[in-house]
Amino acid sequence: MRLLTELTMRKEQKGSEEEIRYRPIGVIHTGFRDKQDAPIQGVFGKEAKGEVAVFPEFAAGLKDIEHFSHLILIYHFHRAEGYDLITKPFLEDEERGIFSVRHFKRPNPIGFSVVKLESVRGNVLAVSEVDILDGTPLLDIKPLVPLFDHRADATNGWLGNPRLDMSRGKAGRHRRE
Amino acid sequence: MRLLTELTMRKEQKGSEEEIRYRPIGVIHTGFRDKQDAPIQGVFGKEAKGEVAVFPEFAAGLKDIEHFSHLILIYHFHRAEGYDLITKPFLEDEERGIFSVRHFKRPNPIGFSVVKLESVRGNVLAVSEVDILDGTPLLDIKPLVPLFDHRADATNGWLGNPRLDMSRGKAGRHRRE
Repeated sequence: MRLLTELTMRKEQKGSEEEIRYRPIGVIHTGFRDKQDAPIQGVFGKEAKGEVAVFPEFAAGLKDIEHFSHLILIYHFHRAEGYDLITKPFLEDEERGIFSVRHFKRPNPIGFSVVKLESVRGNVLAVSEVDILDGTPLLDIKPLVPLFDHRADATNGWLGNPRLDMSRGKAGRHRRE
Repeated sequence: MRLLTELTMRKEQKGSEEEIRYRPIGVIHTGFRDKQDAPIQGVFGKEAKGEVAVFPEFAAGLKDIEHFSHLILIYHFHRAEGYDLITKPFLEDEERGIFSVRHFKRPNPIGFSVVKLESVRGNVLAVSEVDILDGTPLLDIKPLVPLFDHRADATNGWLGNPRLDMSRGKAGRHRRE
């Protein structure tokens, strides 16, 4: 492993100024037009349903996906404008660093959600436990594999155990700002 | 929710031809120069250590990250060239759709790993349980929050319970192609 001198960092940062370019592989459809309609996290919206429409040119890549109960969706927060390195999370009063929270106004507005796969019909995946806005451009789909992705010893940081409060009625939705 | 007619799909696909552009927010350093050196998944390489160097201009966004035991890293598979919609996963003989596996030759070569946060020193995060190649451009960091991301009812697809085989010696490493 290299020693990270300030000089190394500067060189790397310079080398990384090149842009990374992606193209959507599909579109996510949900009933959520605005963030205050959507659950804060999909796990708090068991009934929140959506459709993931993969463009026909990529549909062959969906082979075997029906073997998995849950998927990871990686997508572009298309409604985000700019970013804040310090932000106030939903339902909290303390300011946090952007990399400690899930807020969409991030340096690279990349979204990550775990959703439940309900069914596959051609190039369209019916999903539930969705917290994503309608019309969101999809970048990637990966299977959720608990053997790889779950950590029995992982903590929830300062979030403690907010499940009860967050999942109860309006508290599970985003507040209007 | 809209009905997804073929016409709608074509219109959406056309509308999505615009590129999505990101810039690295840092670089991931590990001892893995090639994929055959790296664990297949970080969870199988408890001792695999690395450093996540966030560029100084984004370092303020790391505030409070030390509260979390594990992080989600989203990064660019910079060594991937092109993609295959159908591929043979590591350690398997059957061909699978690219969205059912974690292979790096994806339409958008975006990587996702859960790592363990060991310590924070300024803009550098020391991490373990790493399966990432040295020099990988970092796109985003999010806290792993089991309350949001774990699903007690999630299955492992056809992967069944390979932990014993995968974690045993060479079997936990990528094979040479």
